[in-house]
Amino acid sequence: MPRTPRVLVLDVNETLSDLSGMAERFVAVGAPPGLAALWFAGVLRDGFALTAAGAHARFGDLARDNLSDLLRGEHLNVSHEDAVETLVAGFGELDLHPDVGDGLRALAALGVRLVTLTNGSAAVTERLLTRSGTRSLVEQVLSVEDAPRWKPAPESYAYALRTCGVEPDDAMLVAAHPWDVDGAGRAGMRTAWVNRTGRAYPSAFRSSEVTVDSLSELARRLTEPSA
Amino acid sequence: MPRTPRVLVLDVNETLSDLSGMAERFVAVGAPPGLAALWFAGVLRDGFALTAAGAHARFGDLARDNLSDLLRGEHLNVSHEDAVETLVAGFGELDLHPDVGDGLRALAALGVRLVTLTNGSAAVTERLLTRSGTRSLVEQVLSVEDAPRWKPAPESYAYALRTCGVEPDDAMLVAAHPWDVDGAGRAGMRTAWVNRTGRAYPSAFRSSEVTVDSLSELARRLTEPSA
Repeated sequence: MPRTPRVLVLDVNETLSDLSGMAERFVAVGAPPGLAALWFAGVLRDGFALTAAGAHARFGDLARDNLSDLLRGEHLNVSHEDAVETLVAGFGELDLHPDVGDGLRALAALGVRLVTLTNGSAAVTERLLTRSGTRSLVEQVLSVEDAPRWKPAPESYAYALRTCGVEPDDAMLVAAHPWDVDGAGRAGMRTAWVNRTGRAYPSAFRSSEVTVDSLSELARRLTEPSA
Repeated sequence: MPRTPRVLVLDVNETLSDLSGMAERFVAVGAPPGLAALWFAGVLRDGFALTAAGAHARFGDLARDNLSDLLRGEHLNVSHEDAVETLVAGFGELDLHPDVGDGLRALAALGVRLVTLTNGSAAVTERLLTRSGTRSLVEQVLSVEDAPRWKPAPESYAYALRTCGVEPDDAMLVAAHPWDVDGAGRAGMRTAWVNRTGRAYPSAFRSSEVTVDSLSELARRLTEPSA
């Protein structure tokens, strides 16, 4: 580890929040729990498609449309409309991964500035951090809603860097998603991949400078003496 | 319908090929059939992410990496490696949707030029069309492998139009995917959405000029007198 970055730019969905909590919410409305992963993949697919085409979308609109389509033909316990509303609301009420609270405290204790940058809404991030008692550790809650483009377009990272007043190599993007690590790397940022499940890093993406299994491990790695 | 386009640019995966044939292949190796949809959504998500970040990827690499990750932890009938190879090979051996053979013949009979444009490989399209006896109806089999970017980036459609020697409004993109319809529309092309399942068109995407339930219906619509 060469030197501690001035700013850590933390992704939110799946990096901080634990999407596995959606499975039981799908079951509760009578839908297959496996649809949660398909839902999230479809939302990102559509958001990235619009970004590639030069457009901008609202995460919430894509979430609602994809979910509505996925629930078509399912035998639900509630009306189709109620299921969509319940599950979209549930997405805004997820918990942090177990390592995140202690991890954020350890990172903050290093004196590094912490900001979040999500393709979702800033309001969902605000609630997530506030509910878990970690909001005060984070200097700024940023969303691509205020950027020209979604992540992983370079304009999204540039927006966060500009807002923080730092150069790309003073900031490290921290994400559970290889596409986010890749995009931030192409935008000149340093990168950390949070790999909680021991999966292999996909070959098509630029790899991270650091790979950790938790935010706590990231805090430890950032305090190691230089090699 | 104002006038018959000079060229129809046909998407391939799901527009011509029937991906529902993957479900039984997943079952055959002992994997949940529902993983097929998650696989394809993940491949597109990753390809679009790289496109949004300004990069280019090979469909086959993304297909292999995503599948390998999805099959992790599944109790398969065969080795993990064999399952990946079997399913990737199976993706290249799908059938056409039942309406496509007659639909392509009816479209060709109108005198309109037919080309395909896929984010996958041209070789897979060649095999798909050859196996089904429809290759002779298609003037050119194009792939983003030869374009600067994947669909739905504007450069992908521009590549197809340049190769065909036509202006955007002389060509109509025909696709089952709203993201493809949207991207082609933003690139100035006319568009047809093939909606075989009666789903709602997602609100975040630009809508199509024509919506049909099959390629045969498209051929009928293109011969209707102008309104």
